[in-house]
Amino acid sequence: MAKTLVFGHKNPDTDTIASAIAASYLLNEMGEDTEAVAQGTPNAETQFALDYFSVTAPRVIANADTETVVLVDHNEAAQSVDNLADVVVEGIYDHHKFAFTNTTPLYITAKPWGSVATILYYEFKQANVTIPSKIAGLMASAIISDTLLLKSPTTTSYDQPALEALAQIAGVTDYETYGLALLKAGTDLSSRTDKELIDGDAKSFEMGGHQFRIGQVNTVDIDEVLSRQSGIEAAMVEEGYEDFLFVITDILNSNSKAVYLGDAAAAIEGAFDKKIQNNVIDLPGVVSRKKQVVPPLEKQF
Amino acid sequence: MAKTLVFGHKNPDTDTIASAIAASYLLNEMGEDTEAVAQGTPNAETQFALDYFSVTAPRVIANADTETVVLVDHNEAAQSVDNLADVVVEGIYDHHKFAFTNTTPLYITAKPWGSVATILYYEFKQANVTIPSKIAGLMASAIISDTLLLKSPTTTSYDQPALEALAQIAGVTDYETYGLALLKAGTDLSSRTDKELIDGDAKSFEMGGHQFRIGQVNTVDIDEVLSRQSGIEAAMVEEGYEDFLFVITDILNSNSKAVYLGDAAAAIEGAFDKKIQNNVIDLPGVVSRKKQVVPPLEKQF
Repeated sequence: MAKTLVFGHKNPDTDTIASAIAASYLLNEMGEDTEAVAQGTPNAETQFALDYFSVTAPRVIANADTETVVLVDHNEAAQSVDNLADVVVEGIYDHHKFAFTNTTPLYITAKPWGSVATILYYEFKQANVTIPSKIAGLMASAIISDTLLLKSPTTTSYDQPALEALAQIAGVTDYETYGLALLKAGTDLSSRTDKELIDGDAKSFEMGGHQFRIGQVNTVDIDEVLSRQSGIEAAMVEEGYEDFLFVITDILNSNSKAVYLGDAAAAIEGAFDKKIQNNVIDLPGVVSRKKQVVPPLEKQF
Repeated sequence: MAKTLVFGHKNPDTDTIASAIAASYLLNEMGEDTEAVAQGTPNAETQFALDYFSVTAPRVIANADTETVVLVDHNEAAQSVDNLADVVVEGIYDHHKFAFTNTTPLYITAKPWGSVATILYYEFKQANVTIPSKIAGLMASAIISDTLLLKSPTTTSYDQPALEALAQIAGVTDYETYGLALLKAGTDLSSRTDKELIDGDAKSFEMGGHQFRIGQVNTVDIDEVLSRQSGIEAAMVEEGYEDFLFVITDILNSNSKAVYLGDAAAAIEGAFDKKIQNNVIDLPGVVSRKKQVVPPLEKQF
């Protein structure tokens, strides 16, 4: 029988790639036969971490050509492989809101923590499985990435101890310095086309009948990104979504602005209690799509 | 703030009641402030266990008059409190298929094991929390009930060790003898009206647009139950469901027959590869609704 495939969401980020690799390793140590794969190539930040710890990027798949899968860092069909309905989901490791339906009992380990890597760190401990140094490095990178170096409001009391332990296993003596280098590696946007920019980390959500697309980029200079606004808007229109919100996040100052195109401007303004000007809405203090963008939109729609 | 309510599914069975009590105790030991409640009064089997271990039945609620809840032994809205959409689900302990949607990240511990009590037994161990003897007795009863004394195909390699350990904690020296008495306590159907019979353990499922109601009773004599077929059918008609399948399970010989009323007889026959005669379909070897009734129906609809 084909191996069970372990993979994260479309437009993979560091947590999705690291968690697929870590979960696959853990499951194999516990007697399963799995392979970590990905629904896309690594972004610049993830590639920085893979290079740093000398790990090869997982094989890219479009569909799961297997009978059984384990989902990490996502549970919604819209973010998963196109043929999800044709395979058996045996397990899920996730830290997002849920919209999951299946027909057979399964394993789910979900916790509202900063990253799936954090959850997996404690799963390794509990199963008494030693984390290889390279994988620990990727997991530490995932925590840094998802929590913006423990500064995002998604950060919980579980993330810092996990990050410290993983950095130590990985031989990273100063995770703050490494973390800043990692985050900055993800903010070099100059080489990316407008389409790559808005697609890079975008996820689809269904909200009250609206097909919502929400993208996000990290930067150290929001205005530099907004200098490309007309090109970005053209790329957003081309995608054809009913609603598209493109969040630009300043990782140094923990603020965001977002470009919105769609037919629900008033609802967007209501959700964030700010006016949209020239298609741009100011989102002071917002850094987390999951915690600070999706919930107010869900409430509004 | 009001306590977090911990409860199982409508038409509570032994696993639902025991798991709500056990999960609430565990969460409180870990610093939460919770109360175990139930969506109905205990059935005869559950009452036998409650009496045996001198535990009071949980308070019955219709709606969750609180802000936060923890679901045990179910995750589908149709089986939960009517106002589920108005409260925050903070956690789920379950062993069923999933159909769950929410708007915020949460704790989920799901495993495809014989009972939620089995899952909780290992959660107690992992959290290093001692299980009080009375609660251990209820949890052992839940495993016995859901696995039909480890004979149901839903039984996993995790259930027997948990049952043995829990029986020991509870001071039950011979869990087979206790278990048979417990199961038999649930099969005295003579005092129950036809409506009580079909409603007792019934759950609603949405399958391919069909509103499906599936009830089940355990018995030691299927023919004795079928001698009430006309009354049972009248009660089923009265409920007004599009499809109603009432499964009658012989717990001694591990067989079932089911009464079916609805407009999809051909699909039912296809799902189980048996002919319906006089509204009754033979289901040899079938004892588990979750494992042997719902999946073939899901596949068919």
